Amino acid sequence: MSARSPATARDRILSLVREKGEVSRGEISQAFSMDKKAVSVAVERLLSEGILRISGLQDSRAGRRREILSVNGAHAGAVGVDLGATHIIGVLVDLAGMVLGRTSYEVRPGLPVDLIRDQVRAVAERLLAHPRGRLARAVGVCVPGFVHPVEGTSLVAENIPGWKDVRIRKELEAALGVPVTVDDSSRAMAVSERWLGSARGEQDFISLDLGFGIGMGIFCGGAPYHGSGWKSGEIGHTVVDPDGLACACGGRGCLETVASGRAIAGQAAEGIRGGRSALLGELTRGNADAATAQDVGVAAAMGDSFSRELLACAGRAVGLALANAAAILNPSVVVLGGGLLAAGASFLDALRESAERHLMPGMRGELRIVESKLGADGSARGAALMAMEGIFRG
Amino acid sequence: MSARSPATARDRILSLVREKGEVSRGEISQAFSMDKKAVSVAVERLLSEGILRISGLQDSRAGRRREILSVNGAHAGAVGVDLGATHIIGVLVDLAGMVLGRTSYEVRPGLPVDLIRDQVRAVAERLLAHPRGRLARAVGVCVPGFVHPVEGTSLVAENIPGWKDVRIRKELEAALGVPVTVDDSSRAMAVSERWLGSARGEQDFISLDLGFGIGMGIFCGGAPYHGSGWKSGEIGHTVVDPDGLACACGGRGCLETVASGRAIAGQAAEGIRGGRSALLGELTRGNADAATAQDVGVAAAMGDSFSRELLACAGRAVGLALANAAAILNPSVVVLGGGLLAAGASFLDALRESAERHLMPGMRGELRIVESKLGADGSARGAALMAMEGIFRG
Repeated sequence: MSARSPATARDRILSLVREKGEVSRGEISQAFSMDKKAVSVAVERLLSEGILRISGLQDSRAGRRREILSVNGAHAGAVGVDLGATHIIGVLVDLAGMVLGRTSYEVRPGLPVDLIRDQVRAVAERLLAHPRGRLARAVGVCVPGFVHPVEGTSLVAENIPGWKDVRIRKELEAALGVPVTVDDSSRAMAVSERWLGSARGEQDFISLDLGFGIGMGIFCGGAPYHGSGWKSGEIGHTVVDPDGLACACGGRGCLETVASGRAIAGQAAEGIRGGRSALLGELTRGNADAATAQDVGVAAAMGDSFSRELLACAGRAVGLALANAAAILNPSVVVLGGGLLAAGASFLDALRESAERHLMPGMRGELRIVESKLGADGSARGAALMAMEGIFRG
Repeated sequence: MSARSPATARDRILSLVREKGEVSRGEISQAFSMDKKAVSVAVERLLSEGILRISGLQDSRAGRRREILSVNGAHAGAVGVDLGATHIIGVLVDLAGMVLGRTSYEVRPGLPVDLIRDQVRAVAERLLAHPRGRLARAVGVCVPGFVHPVEGTSLVAENIPGWKDVRIRKELEAALGVPVTVDDSSRAMAVSERWLGSARGEQDFISLDLGFGIGMGIFCGGAPYHGSGWKSGEIGHTVVDPDGLACACGGRGCLETVASGRAIAGQAAEGIRGGRSALLGELTRGNADAATAQDVGVAAAMGDSFSRELLACAGRAVGLALANAAAILNPSVVVLGGGLLAAGASFLDALRESAERHLMPGMRGELRIVESKLGADGSARGAALMAMEGIFRG
């Protein structure tokens, strides 16, 4: 299901201002072939509601000065919390999506689920207690795996052992006293790319969330696409090798079994045990099971050929899966995000080369593959934006 | 891009009537929690426009008789023409999508492109000259491969040699004197499944077009999804074997190289030449190159083990690609259509078994895989429905 509402003048004006950052009334009128008077009426209303503000004056050709409109960040804000398999990241953002405060915790594998819930709450509480936390009207939480946004439930996250049927919204609303929304982390990442990142203004695009797991966010017609049961975007569980390894999802040969942060760490551990990389052995001080994808990235950067091949292999698998998703969805842009981006050139070059090679020839040259510029906070900011969406929809 | 317009009362009422076939005013009011008076006003307008009609009376609980509303088929009609690699199918349908007339030609491989264009025009002309052809307000054409619906151009169809940059709309509008729309065949098939077939009322679903080529139609949020460059749905060109055979699209190892009607025919020809199926040899009277997927289906039904294994192998490949597409799109329903459905149980059982096995476990049991009941005319009827869409949108 996609949460699509009628495109009223208000919606369209707000979309344009959010996408461009700054626009004049004349540019709005031109963009939508809208009557200047109608634009003025709608803009005045948005100014008096406090959602837009006049951020400057510009000389127009006619010699008059025209007002430049922006989203009024100070009007409202939200807290976004991104719960991942290895981290909890929280941000306090204003209505324009700018980060006013930030906090993060590392989540150690195997932590009891109750402790993780407490950590999520603590992150949100800390940001609400931020000097500017009073701006926050809502909290948006995003989690990997399956969610039910309407019920506010995190159904299952394979990469967080024991995490199942957690009624996050109910729990957090009781503890925090503000409205809480819940959605998928990869979808939240796509939302922040749409409004703040590399997919501004794009109608049909995807973002790949390459981390401990692998997820995908999909925009169709300018809105996030959820699928019939809120489960869209499970590219990490597309099967790349029918006879491959067992996956945490219960399937076999999923992309995540060969190319996720988790898989790379597992392959590194095997390599260390097999004596195939002295450098990785040193970096992990002999504790093979403690190896992470980050260690592999560091070793690769230091010239370790085992690590480089391991990352290239993962990059090739992601590139193929990406090409196949693009053949189905025909996105204008693919935004690459997530912790694996830090793994460096061995991974990214192989990914790009493989995607280009396997993409349907008739689509080559039309698809842009770009790296996220939002860093680690993309999903958390997206979760906050989703929590504030109601303000923009009026 | 998805052609989504605001859901006005008119749109929603028409959607419900089209989906249910017959509804009362009370049912409309109940379905949308709409004020009875508002429903009556909108319905009266649709009745006076001639788009709806009163198709019967029903006793209500209150003892009064209530009017049953349907789409008024006789209000308008359209011709739909489906150009495939092996056929041209034309239908004349009324506003309700019912077939009033039908005609089809077989297209022999390698026919000059100009002759194919003439055949398409002749099919449309014949249906416009049908006793009820005056009902037709528009002609919808669907073709495989890449199209540009806004320009009315068929850009390229790999499975029709020489077919490239054909300005179908312009040519046909000049010849026929009615508005012509152009879209992709698999998308047209999805449209007919949505309004007339097995996906009535579904918001997010896909249809697989299994024929000489393999295509997919996608609905997101109740509307056909085109993608950023009108190229969505190319599941036939997702790569299933990176080291596989060269494909007509210029790529390598695409699903179409192992599981399309074209691939099955090619494998049958090899089998005949290699003496691996006496029955196929007999059916094709020794002319291996004349073998078709249909021959393989017939041989399989007669117990030929080579043909059965060939179809099972194709079915398994389609099932895997389908499971992967479902992981990404999370559709409620997959409708299987196209000529390969006639290949029988060897193909379909393998397809279903493979899709079920490879589908992400957390999605199993939620995805319905059904066979189309629209037969060979699905795409042609969908093309006609797409040509009439403007009438419903008012």
